[in-house]
Amino acid sequence: MVSRVIPVDDFDLVIFGGTGDLARRKILPGLYRRCLSGQVPDDARIIGAARSDMDTEGYRQMIREAIAEFGGPEAADGKAIDRFLTRLHYVTVDARGDGGWKELHDLLRKDVINAFYFSVGPGLFGDLAERLLRFEIADTNARIVVEKPFGRDLESARALNATLAQHFNEDQIYRIDHYLGKETVQNLMAVRFGNVLFEPLWNNHYVDHIQITVAETVGVEGRGAYYDKSGAMRDMVQNHLMQLLCLIAMEPPSMFDADAVRDEKLKVIRALQPVDYHHIVRGQYDKTRTSADYRTDAEDPRSHTESFVALKAHINNWRWAGVPFYMRTGKKLKARSSEIAVVFKDLGHSIFPGDEARHRNILSIQLQPNEGIKLQVTIKEPGPGGMRLVDVPLDMTFAEALGPDAEGVPDAYERLIMDVIRGNQTLFMRGDEVEAAWAWTDPIIEGWKARNDVPKLYDQGSSGPEDALMLLHRDGRKWREIKE
Amino acid sequence: MVSRVIPVDDFDLVIFGGTGDLARRKILPGLYRRCLSGQVPDDARIIGAARSDMDTEGYRQMIREAIAEFGGPEAADGKAIDRFLTRLHYVTVDARGDGGWKELHDLLRKDVINAFYFSVGPGLFGDLAERLLRFEIADTNARIVVEKPFGRDLESARALNATLAQHFNEDQIYRIDHYLGKETVQNLMAVRFGNVLFEPLWNNHYVDHIQITVAETVGVEGRGAYYDKSGAMRDMVQNHLMQLLCLIAMEPPSMFDADAVRDEKLKVIRALQPVDYHHIVRGQYDKTRTSADYRTDAEDPRSHTESFVALKAHINNWRWAGVPFYMRTGKKLKARSSEIAVVFKDLGHSIFPGDEARHRNILSIQLQPNEGIKLQVTIKEPGPGGMRLVDVPLDMTFAEALGPDAEGVPDAYERLIMDVIRGNQTLFMRGDEVEAAWAWTDPIIEGWKARNDVPKLYDQGSSGPEDALMLLHRDGRKWREIKE
Repeated sequence: MVSRVIPVDDFDLVIFGGTGDLARRKILPGLYRRCLSGQVPDDARIIGAARSDMDTEGYRQMIREAIAEFGGPEAADGKAIDRFLTRLHYVTVDARGDGGWKELHDLLRKDVINAFYFSVGPGLFGDLAERLLRFEIADTNARIVVEKPFGRDLESARALNATLAQHFNEDQIYRIDHYLGKETVQNLMAVRFGNVLFEPLWNNHYVDHIQITVAETVGVEGRGAYYDKSGAMRDMVQNHLMQLLCLIAMEPPSMFDADAVRDEKLKVIRALQPVDYHHIVRGQYDKTRTSADYRTDAEDPRSHTESFVALKAHINNWRWAGVPFYMRTGKKLKARSSEIAVVFKDLGHSIFPGDEARHRNILSIQLQPNEGIKLQVTIKEPGPGGMRLVDVPLDMTFAEALGPDAEGVPDAYERLIMDVIRGNQTLFMRGDEVEAAWAWTDPIIEGWKARNDVPKLYDQGSSGPEDALMLLHRDGRKWREIKE
Repeated sequence: MVSRVIPVDDFDLVIFGGTGDLARRKILPGLYRRCLSGQVPDDARIIGAARSDMDTEGYRQMIREAIAEFGGPEAADGKAIDRFLTRLHYVTVDARGDGGWKELHDLLRKDVINAFYFSVGPGLFGDLAERLLRFEIADTNARIVVEKPFGRDLESARALNATLAQHFNEDQIYRIDHYLGKETVQNLMAVRFGNVLFEPLWNNHYVDHIQITVAETVGVEGRGAYYDKSGAMRDMVQNHLMQLLCLIAMEPPSMFDADAVRDEKLKVIRALQPVDYHHIVRGQYDKTRTSADYRTDAEDPRSHTESFVALKAHINNWRWAGVPFYMRTGKKLKARSSEIAVVFKDLGHSIFPGDEARHRNILSIQLQPNEGIKLQVTIKEPGPGGMRLVDVPLDMTFAEALGPDAEGVPDAYERLIMDVIRGNQTLFMRGDEVEAAWAWTDPIIEGWKARNDVPKLYDQGSSGPEDALMLLHRDGRKWREIKE
């Protein structure tokens, strides 16, 4: 049932930061898999660009090793890797000087799609953008890909947007949030808007509440000092969780195209009510006998940065008035699991005598570690035991039916890079969305600072601080279990 | 996942017509399987009663052979059959005389549940009922089970009801329609009323139309002369199809108990609009090179009796105004298949560019040859091919998950007989329901007679007469394919 691969148009893709971690772990192994699938034209090229003094041969060797390490099962095909490597080129560029730019200009073909992936810190965005224009490398057809974090508050995000806007139009800028590239996020759109079944129920008459959980098992180990300047709210809630919230909560766009979808997402963010201080729980993971606590990992014994946050949000519009959106994310939790759960209301009344269980339908969208959509329904317990009801999960993805072909399903980065080549911005964040998200986030973070809020300690391997459980318990509700 | 077997109370069950076809094919093999499952107490007994001069030993031998022939895989267990046969007794009774009744009286235990299965022609109902009382065999706790056909028009059904009512209360009378005993019919109730998902969509805002098909591959072969006095309308539509219609269309009963459910079913029948003559198609199967036509099978070369009928019905209430209920049933069709399909409306608007397919959700309830409930939903076609939608069936019964245990699921007769012992009338027809169904059916049949309507010929192995296809085509709709 896996659908055919539809080739994209010919392109030259330049990756600034082409020797970096993301390029080696995700971008190039992903491009290799897309080439292997037949989606990339034979002539298409990938040009690594970084300050390292290296030649194309050296770069190809570096990427050969990266694919061997991060390429997954497809990395066993030596001949395919050889073929892929012939697409690669490397140019040493000085992002803050003039070195290498002329060479890059001469290397690029003008008659194919040009895309530039800024896999570098945001401090370099302006430098790269200015040089791409000055050296006449990028024109108004060029596409720019930028990674999160996109700012650390409203002010810095505005500044970044302004820098990019000096050189490029909004329709050239692809702000990646890889959560949006997941197969299941797209399937969620198909399920919501491709069935007459769900939309009539998708509102405060039938939905009791919505839960969004992004739980990690890792801590901040190597990058504690960096993470400590950010925290879970900036690192996860402001981008990933809010993007998921938007897709779940938005009104049906008139078309599934970039501006219609992003207009609707923006409306959701702007309709978010400021969050009550008492509706947020922050946490830091505690030490164990064998493992350091957050403050040790963060290299600041007095850090008040949160490695966990849970909150209750409300959307002030007709559809969602009164429906809480509970969101939580954290590190060192009991399992790696990302899930959106749409919890429908209880049946008002059970007609079945002796049926004491309170059955409810739940649509759960799992993003990590496995992707899938399940609809919990109530059916008759099969067999001779009379009319007893039982809750069972319906698989709405047919992941099992896919079988071995499931490996042909592109991962989020692969899908999003192909969308860049296709010129499809639907699954990328628009500048005004990012700013609106910060406008909602900033007062929350400022509120903590003003109150000198101290995060609650929580056990490593737990579901987070007890206060997070109480946040729902007070409302007569329960978090979904965090499990893989 | 098959639920535990819950034993019923101790009983003596008398089967009038205990040597007949139904008793040997269905009732006794079914009772054997229920005993095997542990649902029947050790002391419970089954008493065959018929006019044949036979003793208990002879009866046990007859039933031993019947189980061997019709008992399914469970019939291989010789020891279990021996044990079962010790429950059996036989009494020769004269339904129209006095012979055997005293003996039957003496045989029955008064301190257990007494049930009397009238597996005989309706002409004997009055005789049996009168003698059961006169010989003080049945009291007001006794239960009477009667089989269809329950009358051949409103007048005869009223007379039958009156005859039974002379001797028994309505809550003692169990009118069997074995379609209602199917696992899937009960699961349909669980799905409709156990989920908050469906009830809000179960009306003329979201349902386009409903189809009910009961297709047979057999003709009327051996019993043509009998069938010719009845026809598809009396034989199938008036009972089976209307019962299914009622369960699909009824308002939620306040409780899933006998009177609440049957009150709601009755309301549906009473709200049925008289059917327009032009909204009905009658058919007779034609001859083939190797197989006779209906008239030959029916032993009447000028017969106008239908072996096929298709019609469009409307229910005049708030929920269903404007929603057509298409029903069809026939013999010698292309496959043996009984299905109810709730066809939801098209999406008003597709937001997905290039998505030309008109996706619609369909809930299909299959009753024969396999049971199951499937919900057709639209999802994203998995894989890299962009946002393409595909329709897939979700299995709402988990029949596959049951695996070998599925043999433990009782068939319709088994389930209904156990309901008789339990005293649960929910899945049996009440007298006023039967009369209301005839009140709707009679004018249709009288209309044909008045117009001297001649059935259309149709090919054996087809979907019925072309006119039946046109009945939906005129409305811009199509019948579901008839397939196993």
